[in-house]
Amino acid sequence: MATKLEKQEDITAFVDSIDTFLLDCDGVIWAANHVFDGVQTVLDLLRSKGKRILFVTNNSTKSRKAYLKKFQSLDIHASADEIFGSSYAAAYYIANVLKFPKAKKVYVIGMAGVRDELESEGIQYVEPEEDSKNLGSMDEMATIKPDPEIGAVLLGFDLDINYKKLAKAFTYLHHNKDCHFLATNSDLTFPAGGTVYPGTGALLSALTAPLDRDPVILGKPHQPMLDVIIAKYHLDKERTCMVGDRLDTDIEFGKTGGLKTLLVMTGVTTPASLEASKIQPDFYISSLGHLKP
Amino acid sequence: MATKLEKQEDITAFVDSIDTFLLDCDGVIWAANHVFDGVQTVLDLLRSKGKRILFVTNNSTKSRKAYLKKFQSLDIHASADEIFGSSYAAAYYIANVLKFPKAKKVYVIGMAGVRDELESEGIQYVEPEEDSKNLGSMDEMATIKPDPEIGAVLLGFDLDINYKKLAKAFTYLHHNKDCHFLATNSDLTFPAGGTVYPGTGALLSALTAPLDRDPVILGKPHQPMLDVIIAKYHLDKERTCMVGDRLDTDIEFGKTGGLKTLLVMTGVTTPASLEASKIQPDFYISSLGHLKP
Repeated sequence: MATKLEKQEDITAFVDSIDTFLLDCDGVIWAANHVFDGVQTVLDLLRSKGKRILFVTNNSTKSRKAYLKKFQSLDIHASADEIFGSSYAAAYYIANVLKFPKAKKVYVIGMAGVRDELESEGIQYVEPEEDSKNLGSMDEMATIKPDPEIGAVLLGFDLDINYKKLAKAFTYLHHNKDCHFLATNSDLTFPAGGTVYPGTGALLSALTAPLDRDPVILGKPHQPMLDVIIAKYHLDKERTCMVGDRLDTDIEFGKTGGLKTLLVMTGVTTPASLEASKIQPDFYISSLGHLKP
Repeated sequence: MATKLEKQEDITAFVDSIDTFLLDCDGVIWAANHVFDGVQTVLDLLRSKGKRILFVTNNSTKSRKAYLKKFQSLDIHASADEIFGSSYAAAYYIANVLKFPKAKKVYVIGMAGVRDELESEGIQYVEPEEDSKNLGSMDEMATIKPDPEIGAVLLGFDLDINYKKLAKAFTYLHHNKDCHFLATNSDLTFPAGGTVYPGTGALLSALTAPLDRDPVILGKPHQPMLDVIIAKYHLDKERTCMVGDRLDTDIEFGKTGGLKTLLVMTGVTTPASLEASKIQPDFYISSLGHLKP
């Protein structure tokens, strides 16, 4: 069972044992446009003690720069270098792990966040405009053909997804086993307006169902995202803590990767669901705002 | 093991034991625009012996009337009443099994075939034009809300599928357990131009993945389609034979439903794949064109 962080001496000892905090955002830092009490103070205190902070989010719709604007709009101090989104993780992976050939292109199903991060890593991609209009008739289906120029398909959340994009992505992957298959995350739902809508994982299912291959997923709880973070920042796993509100993504992500894990109770996890879960964090705390060392 | 129909006396005895032949089309009657040798003669002979013929297809993009045009273009004699597509099966199911209230509407992801068949059964549906354009921004996502007027979501193959349609269908189903969830078929791929593209089952996965509920599927091998056929034509299962080229859809469909089954070798099944399969038809024959009683 997880240990509750409540007494000051326990909190201080815990913070002393950690060099890097990987922080989920929604449900940890904020809920919609409300920042949880004390969070800014805690972030400042941790930084003043020399701790590294990384905001780790599965949301692929925004680049690091665009995400920074969200922090600024909520008056939270952060730098672009502290933000690590799944779209950046994917771009970093393509550039540095796959060592993607300059002559090849990525076929993107995704939004500006994905394309901006690919650009930041100098990776070529197919401009989305050409596929934003659906096929006109069934006869046009066979105009979609394999393309040796496409070296990877990357799927993130895409408000503009349509059949043409799915058929192209499927065709590139189905006919070319050397074409890499990547996704920014596998979240089945996307939270908005106090409810949920189909998420990246739902869109991804339309590709994985007819394909006989699985994607490399650059979002929590999948380990390639952690591999990228560790590689980029040269982190000591034993002194790195994943902080999140979701057991099946954030805590699972940290535990599988051999990190310390801290659950906050300001998001989706209730005391009852924590008790019932097989996934147990090392520690839990009522709010990140209480983590004052 | 399946019995091969080769000798004339076996073929005659088999045909004598059957009143109704349910015939798959692609791979049985034709391949693309080529009609297999002798098929027209066999169809005429069977009709002359008083056998009922029903062409049973999972393709939901065409209504019975539109499918008839395909038969006519290939010079195959058929009547609209002999054609039973998954879009008609869905419309029949909604009208006669669900006894859909006149005041409710069906939310359709699908093409003209689905809408035409709903109209033929007097069922109201949402016109597709309003959702053919995707959402303009993430802020518009929360404008998609539950709608008590929607009594069913019906998904078929749709070249015009987009995020807005998926999000609406998800929202109607997620927030209203009384809203019926139907699909015309679950074929993962759609054959075209000598290759395959994502099929209805692939699109359906984008809905089933984030939902905690399963659809009623009105296509082979799922039994609701057979229930509808049996109900409409009052067939004697013991004297009804499913004829098809696919073990996992056509033959599985007939076997699960307690029909006789006949595999033809003019489609996707090879002698080796027949021998290796757990799904064994009662009989197999090299081509439907050889079934001369």
